[in-house]
Amino acid sequence: MQTLPDGGVTAPQGFEAAASICGLKSSGAPDLALVVSQRDCSGAGVFTRNRLPAAPVTLDRVTLKRNSDRLRGVVTNSGIANACTGLAGLEAAQEMQRLTAESLSCDTDQVLVLSTGVIGVQLDMAKLEKGIGQSFASLSKENGLAAAEAIMTTDTRPKQVAVSVELPGGTVTIGGMAKGAGMIHPDMATMLAVLTSDAQVAAPVLQRLLQGAVERSFNRISVDGDTSTNDSVLILANGASGVEVEDEVDLARFAQALDRVCLTLAQEIVRDGEGASKFVTLSVVGAPDEEAAVRVAKTIATSLLVKTALAGGDPNWGRILAAAGRAGLGLDPSRLGLWIGSGGGDELQLVRAGEVSDWKETEATKILAQPEITMRLDLGQGEASATVWTCDLTHEYVSINADYRT
Amino acid sequence: MQTLPDGGVTAPQGFEAAASICGLKSSGAPDLALVVSQRDCSGAGVFTRNRLPAAPVTLDRVTLKRNSDRLRGVVTNSGIANACTGLAGLEAAQEMQRLTAESLSCDTDQVLVLSTGVIGVQLDMAKLEKGIGQSFASLSKENGLAAAEAIMTTDTRPKQVAVSVELPGGTVTIGGMAKGAGMIHPDMATMLAVLTSDAQVAAPVLQRLLQGAVERSFNRISVDGDTSTNDSVLILANGASGVEVEDEVDLARFAQALDRVCLTLAQEIVRDGEGASKFVTLSVVGAPDEEAAVRVAKTIATSLLVKTALAGGDPNWGRILAAAGRAGLGLDPSRLGLWIGSGGGDELQLVRAGEVSDWKETEATKILAQPEITMRLDLGQGEASATVWTCDLTHEYVSINADYRT
Repeated sequence: MQTLPDGGVTAPQGFEAAASICGLKSSGAPDLALVVSQRDCSGAGVFTRNRLPAAPVTLDRVTLKRNSDRLRGVVTNSGIANACTGLAGLEAAQEMQRLTAESLSCDTDQVLVLSTGVIGVQLDMAKLEKGIGQSFASLSKENGLAAAEAIMTTDTRPKQVAVSVELPGGTVTIGGMAKGAGMIHPDMATMLAVLTSDAQVAAPVLQRLLQGAVERSFNRISVDGDTSTNDSVLILANGASGVEVEDEVDLARFAQALDRVCLTLAQEIVRDGEGASKFVTLSVVGAPDEEAAVRVAKTIATSLLVKTALAGGDPNWGRILAAAGRAGLGLDPSRLGLWIGSGGGDELQLVRAGEVSDWKETEATKILAQPEITMRLDLGQGEASATVWTCDLTHEYVSINADYRT
Repeated sequence: MQTLPDGGVTAPQGFEAAASICGLKSSGAPDLALVVSQRDCSGAGVFTRNRLPAAPVTLDRVTLKRNSDRLRGVVTNSGIANACTGLAGLEAAQEMQRLTAESLSCDTDQVLVLSTGVIGVQLDMAKLEKGIGQSFASLSKENGLAAAEAIMTTDTRPKQVAVSVELPGGTVTIGGMAKGAGMIHPDMATMLAVLTSDAQVAAPVLQRLLQGAVERSFNRISVDGDTSTNDSVLILANGASGVEVEDEVDLARFAQALDRVCLTLAQEIVRDGEGASKFVTLSVVGAPDEEAAVRVAKTIATSLLVKTALAGGDPNWGRILAAAGRAGLGLDPSRLGLWIGSGGGDELQLVRAGEVSDWKETEATKILAQPEITMRLDLGQGEASATVWTCDLTHEYVSINADYRT
């Protein structure tokens, strides 16, 4: 398995991408992305659990239920989320689907639709129609990065990755792009991700593998604890490599590659979290079961007091323990241990048996001044563990979100 | 029922208070508060549900279980939370209790103990012993406000209130003081509150009334979603008014007064929330049941995106709906209505049937520029409702919490 330099959604064979400017963003930046395959694809999707899903989420669920075997592409707009837009919004999403299918000369239900941006605003279909038309003129293998750029909102950089894996039948590649910097919380797939593969994988298998990969990646990150109305992770597999992934060993290797793609994109989202200055890998070990480990880790990862302490480079371990204490799990203080590190393997133990251990303030602040930090909390209760990824909460986050819409 | 001007913990008959400087705070501000009654009191307490409770919480739970009928006072230190301090911390809390009881010439288990401040630091008992001694020299009716000031940490102002109510047997008064500006979340009684009354009320009744009042006040506020290790609300009733509160009608009136004291203090905590510039009263109506209404309201009240939009005065109603959507309750978008107001009764409808209704940006931003804002979300599902109180999330919050400890 290897990560391909500069790879993205067009790294797998048979996929092309394009971007265009519809004018949905006041900045005038690209706001429409196309990812298409000339061959039919199997497809799968994981969507937000928010009970007010955006129109494209509703539409894609229906489309995937009706047709997950002969998909052709994904059209994505940024700038407007098409959420809380009622019946008119659903009609707009269907129109996006229809316009794209028309240009692709395929059936309407062979296209999936994504939107991201401001909630509650209706899409301008005239602008979208023009943008979709223009994007088809520039479809190419080279435009994977352009597509990744066109789906950005408050992101400061595009996020893409591709991984190839050798199977007995040949090489298969999985590519992906993602966006998301705010309204990020591991309650579901987070923000938008479009994945592609030239492997041939049956749709139900793809759905199962995608759910597993999302659970271990996008569902384990948090920027601000808010779950979006639009969160979607889609995958299309077109079989263009000629390699069928079917038997258990091949599936396991394909799943590993899919995990790496998802994890890389998910971590990139956190690294680019709104206002984030620090990337934090938080492991909870010694838990009675994985669910408990995840629950404690997520409670710490979403604590404002922990995240602001991280922003200040303050080794305020008490806030970490206090957050663990309100996760709803029974804890024995005398068994707790806490370590921090800056990723090099060396760790500093802050807490031993639930109390402060012997360390120098300067050692701790030196670690916390690094851009990448590890934290490991041992509950001392069992063998299970879980890792989540989060970032600090800075002034910049407040600036971005107090000013975003107006 | 009337609110007494400038009333606090010493407004009820038979209570005195005092404050002193132990030197636990680096600022040199007062950090020890005493509230005592010369007569035995019945007492009750509601404590944090955090699974790593601070030493004083553990001690008070034991004390109240053993003795809730002949309490004499509460000693509180600020600056150090005495949480995550292990056995030494518990011994320190016991020593605080013992020293206070000694000065009061009563049994050790007649004193309750509270601490608030930094987690994980041991109390300096020599400093505390000196401070407790000094405070006894200044015990008086006049020092209620001084005590309310001495329990402050990041609070910008003291919080106190007193309410008197006429009962057939005579007038009884309930007083109270509270502190808390960060680590505030309605998962339980929030931060510290000490309530006093000159009514005579049996301890089990007092416990029941206190739990109800806390549920409707301290448990309905949120500053930052973090539940402290130290949250405690204590009440002492010394019977000095000579009025026994026993029959149902009297109890109901006493409970109303207790509600007003708790609600006033809880709202004061939110008004003084760390960095808060806006006080928000959020009502969820049309819910299938009260629990659902509370759940939706709390999810909105703790959303970082909602709170930062409020800081920016941005009528970003989509974030409010999106937060409601992830509360785990089934919602019908077409039934949702949302109104905002600035407390005068006039409201502006932002959302009708789940979609943006007809309003001018200037009307909405004018309302959101006010220091006190109301938001009302109608789920259109039933008759139940709930109100919570929260504040905005500002740059100042980040500054306070990135810099607090170091």
